[in-house]
Amino acid sequence: MKSGQTAEKAPVFGDAFIHGLTDLFRWRRDVRRFKPDPVPSPLIEKLLGLAALAPSVGNSQPWRFVSVEMLSAREAVIANFNVCNAAALASYEGERAALYASLKLSGLREAPVHLAVFCDHATEAGFGLGQTTMPEALDYSVVAAIHTFWLCARAENLGVGWVSILDPRQVCRTLDVPAQWKLIAYLCVGFPLEEHLDPELVRHEWQVHLAETKRLHRR
Amino acid sequence: MKSGQTAEKAPVFGDAFIHGLTDLFRWRRDVRRFKPDPVPSPLIEKLLGLAALAPSVGNSQPWRFVSVEMLSAREAVIANFNVCNAAALASYEGERAALYASLKLSGLREAPVHLAVFCDHATEAGFGLGQTTMPEALDYSVVAAIHTFWLCARAENLGVGWVSILDPRQVCRTLDVPAQWKLIAYLCVGFPLEEHLDPELVRHEWQVHLAETKRLHRR
Repeated sequence: MKSGQTAEKAPVFGDAFIHGLTDLFRWRRDVRRFKPDPVPSPLIEKLLGLAALAPSVGNSQPWRFVSVEMLSAREAVIANFNVCNAAALASYEGERAALYASLKLSGLREAPVHLAVFCDHATEAGFGLGQTTMPEALDYSVVAAIHTFWLCARAENLGVGWVSILDPRQVCRTLDVPAQWKLIAYLCVGFPLEEHLDPELVRHEWQVHLAETKRLHRR
Repeated sequence: MKSGQTAEKAPVFGDAFIHGLTDLFRWRRDVRRFKPDPVPSPLIEKLLGLAALAPSVGNSQPWRFVSVEMLSAREAVIANFNVCNAAALASYEGERAALYASLKLSGLREAPVHLAVFCDHATEAGFGLGQTTMPEALDYSVVAAIHTFWLCARAENLGVGWVSILDPRQVCRTLDVPAQWKLIAYLCVGFPLEEHLDPELVRHEWQVHLAETKRLHRR
């Protein structure tokens, strides 16, 4: 029972670290404007190693990352986005539609790295623990891995943008992944052109930060 | 358009911070064994403020946290867990069943703070941006907030345990939340009795850490 134990002492996180962590959360952005500079492969592999430290239901580790490198696959994903984004734009009217049309909602064309992130619904890892009444916890585990990747990337000055304006089944077909893999996110990754403290959707007046009163309730 | 800009300079995260961040990911645990010590309310409020810096689709910020304080509500959640956990145990056989029965899967009885975390599907914030083709991105935003809370909590030496062995509709009824709130997670929060580098489910031989080869694929 003690085989996994090590002599390493638990760290104590001091004020300086907590200050830095707060800055990391404050300055993490959904990046859509990238420099063309390539991202070293070992850096991506390091970040994926850290992502695998994310919590997962039953320790199922259901995250599967696909690096989309073929030009034909990238063009198919961009076409997928363009169709879905045009349909989304058509659902808005008046000023909201004009504002939507003015937003830059993905950096698919510019990002040097594309990562499609899936949840493997066929995995036997975790032996189903914790999934009986809330099976969606498997998908949520992948979100935790994505968020871990995102935070580590930002700490390494690398930007990440999450694109959800895609037909997920079409992405699965384009990338020819196993039938039981569910697309959770499509990520654009690269060095950002700009740094901002405020989210793009706040800066461009799409949605303000909500008041704290909405957040905590008591029972 | 520049109203949200500030003069604050973007931080540069150095090697010491990245080392600390890596330790945070390595030492974050799903905690089920808590000290009885109370958690100061201002600390919980600080952590919820940081959680609200999480990414959300369309900046919708759909996370709603309910602090479960009434004894009757806590007892109902514990009864809910006990029924679901017994049903889950009955689905295993032989050695797996014996191993499952030996696991401590929640700290509901001991944890001084219970937080039920919901996604508000009725929110108009975000104006639906990014949700047309992948509506589940709204739920995923709440997971990112939970993970943010979890990481900040660990940095403050506070333990968090995510309980998914619950009937979510029954939790909604117990807590009498609005009809369009969906339960994403039920969290136990408190100061941990023990610190471990290895996950409980690895230490107790339920599920090992998967090899890296499962993780990254190329197309």
